[in-house]
Amino acid sequence: MPVGLLSPDPALLHPVKGVRIAVAEAGIRKKNRKDVTLFCLDEGTDVVGVFTQNRYCAAPVQVCRAHLSSGAAIRALIVNTGNANAGTGELGLQAARQTCAALAQRMGLEPSQVLPFSTGVIMEHLPWQRMDAVMDDLLVNVQVDRWAQAAEAIMTTDTIPKAVSQQVQLSHGACVTITGISKGAGMIRPNMATMLSYLATDAVIDKALLQPLVHELADQSFNRITIDGDTSTNDAFVLMATHQAGHAPIVSWDSADGQLLKAALLQVARTLAQAIVRDGEGATKFITVQVQGGRTVQECQWVAYAIAHSPLVKTAFYASDPNLGRILAAVGYAGIGDLNQLDIALFLDDVQVVSHGARHPGYREEEGQRVMKQSDIVVRVELGRGDAAHEIWTCDFSHDYVTINADYRS
Amino acid sequence: MPVGLLSPDPALLHPVKGVRIAVAEAGIRKKNRKDVTLFCLDEGTDVVGVFTQNRYCAAPVQVCRAHLSSGAAIRALIVNTGNANAGTGELGLQAARQTCAALAQRMGLEPSQVLPFSTGVIMEHLPWQRMDAVMDDLLVNVQVDRWAQAAEAIMTTDTIPKAVSQQVQLSHGACVTITGISKGAGMIRPNMATMLSYLATDAVIDKALLQPLVHELADQSFNRITIDGDTSTNDAFVLMATHQAGHAPIVSWDSADGQLLKAALLQVARTLAQAIVRDGEGATKFITVQVQGGRTVQECQWVAYAIAHSPLVKTAFYASDPNLGRILAAVGYAGIGDLNQLDIALFLDDVQVVSHGARHPGYREEEGQRVMKQSDIVVRVELGRGDAAHEIWTCDFSHDYVTINADYRS
Repeated sequence: MPVGLLSPDPALLHPVKGVRIAVAEAGIRKKNRKDVTLFCLDEGTDVVGVFTQNRYCAAPVQVCRAHLSSGAAIRALIVNTGNANAGTGELGLQAARQTCAALAQRMGLEPSQVLPFSTGVIMEHLPWQRMDAVMDDLLVNVQVDRWAQAAEAIMTTDTIPKAVSQQVQLSHGACVTITGISKGAGMIRPNMATMLSYLATDAVIDKALLQPLVHELADQSFNRITIDGDTSTNDAFVLMATHQAGHAPIVSWDSADGQLLKAALLQVARTLAQAIVRDGEGATKFITVQVQGGRTVQECQWVAYAIAHSPLVKTAFYASDPNLGRILAAVGYAGIGDLNQLDIALFLDDVQVVSHGARHPGYREEEGQRVMKQSDIVVRVELGRGDAAHEIWTCDFSHDYVTINADYRS
Repeated sequence: MPVGLLSPDPALLHPVKGVRIAVAEAGIRKKNRKDVTLFCLDEGTDVVGVFTQNRYCAAPVQVCRAHLSSGAAIRALIVNTGNANAGTGELGLQAARQTCAALAQRMGLEPSQVLPFSTGVIMEHLPWQRMDAVMDDLLVNVQVDRWAQAAEAIMTTDTIPKAVSQQVQLSHGACVTITGISKGAGMIRPNMATMLSYLATDAVIDKALLQPLVHELADQSFNRITIDGDTSTNDAFVLMATHQAGHAPIVSWDSADGQLLKAALLQVARTLAQAIVRDGEGATKFITVQVQGGRTVQECQWVAYAIAHSPLVKTAFYASDPNLGRILAAVGYAGIGDLNQLDIALFLDDVQVVSHGARHPGYREEEGQRVMKQSDIVVRVELGRGDAAHEIWTCDFSHDYVTINADYRS
């Protein structure tokens, strides 16, 4: 059961002018489920993306990078589940390229104008011909109001689809739409925690702003979530800007409209990112880890991820056990070589647990227990060394995580 | 159930001349169990140690470091379980110092000649007076043949005691004894995976060789094991050399006797270290991770630990599922920025699974399945970039791990 997360209401997912979507059953791995999604983009759309840092990145990730850096005008995205096309060597690259070529030919495009995405089992050859077989059908059926279907079709072991939509009014009356979907932290059967997210807006944004924007959005959202520290081979976050909202272009984020638009984009990206954690495999708790008082943001990140990745901390949250020495131990091994443990303070929500590195005199275990029983918990560590801070989001570690991931692929 | 590990036979644990041991029930946390161990060392013994790198190191670790670096002749070690004396601030330091002072006074020593060790629950004050209350009893009862009792008394959630003994003949007929004990990877109730190990030898070894020796032994043994990546606040590995075996001193490891002695010491240290993994919490498999063909040892270590710490890899081993894309993904995110995935090969024991970064043409899943069902498995990754290599040992990740660590402290 996801933590504090409901299935999106399709009626609230606003179409984005210039983006048409279709889904189909190609039988990539299983029958009777939609497993291919097509995004068709109007001419004039700009597309930017960030991809996994994993050096074992999948073939489609390699092809996406090549097509985006070629400067080609991207007009279509095609996404399959059931097979990650990763660990597949040269044959995998050929399969990804053939997928693009087959779609491009039908659309009268160059192959480099298509971006391919895959998620699913690793080390198995992608049966791309099955995608080829549904392309005509996909192209006939593209519609602007298919975001909910797309959110469902890109799922792997996600338990519910993830989609968010936001409309904001700019200063001269133009209404701008941002709609996005994501899939996340399902791993086995298919067996990788691929994070995929597609975010589209019809806002008119100066092209030069887009690449820095997608990085900033990722840094503030998808790059702050972790389920188990396993970076996927296929992670991708793509931003599509169709520029069709009919307002004066945003040329700087400092303007009032720029600030509003960016805040709305960030809100959508964060909601999608947090939804992945809330639906993390076996998750029963959503945990915000805040680290403050560091000398650098980097050292705050080290501490935050040490806490978020510690199996001992994660199982203690699962047990609702305020076994908080485990958090202190993670702070201690996070990699800050000159950390002084006597400077450390620790809070669970509003409850101070540790001061000067040891149990806070006023701390009562019943108070810690009360917070640990909540489904949403904020862990705040004060390092007492400086002014830097960082925040990430994670979930607990339950029996269901082991069950899901120890289940034999079938 | 530990993996391929039996309780040591007390009759095979040879006394080490110059080391006398006693254990007692102090009731530190629970009644009716031995929870304090005393080692008394003859005059002339040299003691060296390595300790946790965790900056949240426990009070006794801080006191050990201070006493060892003071140059004092160490004559006693006192170890308690049930309480880690970590996350206890200034009061914790006082408790550790008072323990040393109380024992030193009875033995006619300086407090700096005593080393204190603790393992158990974090963030609770150590009731050191309970140790004080059993010190007279301990001092009356010290005996040379108490290694098996000590191995048992230092346990926390270990399921069986860990002890090894080795005797070797040096070239002029002298028989040298090495005996050691360790405790490991039990975490909750008490709640930290403190690794403690005590190794003694009566070999006559030049003092200048000892400090480098203990580091080298640790690097080749205890620093190569991981259960879950959570570095304890209390880890300690101590080597005691009593110099009473009556042979010409070892002044270099290059001599025939030096090589033999060092090999025996290393064998004991490795066996004790691997025993910790074999008795890891919830462990059902013992996994050797070998990474070869790296440019540097460090990058081989990164890859080995990425594999050993991946919850996805560990749950796949638990399931006996040759879901080997997970290993490739871990190789890919281990931190080698210029890794070429097409250079990678992967073996499970003698079965080649991956060549040139993709599924090996001759690989059959039944073969992978056969190896995955074993209780001892070697995973070998070939990076194809150079001549460096590294090897570490870990275990799988089971439902019992979650059960043990999500169990409420009581």
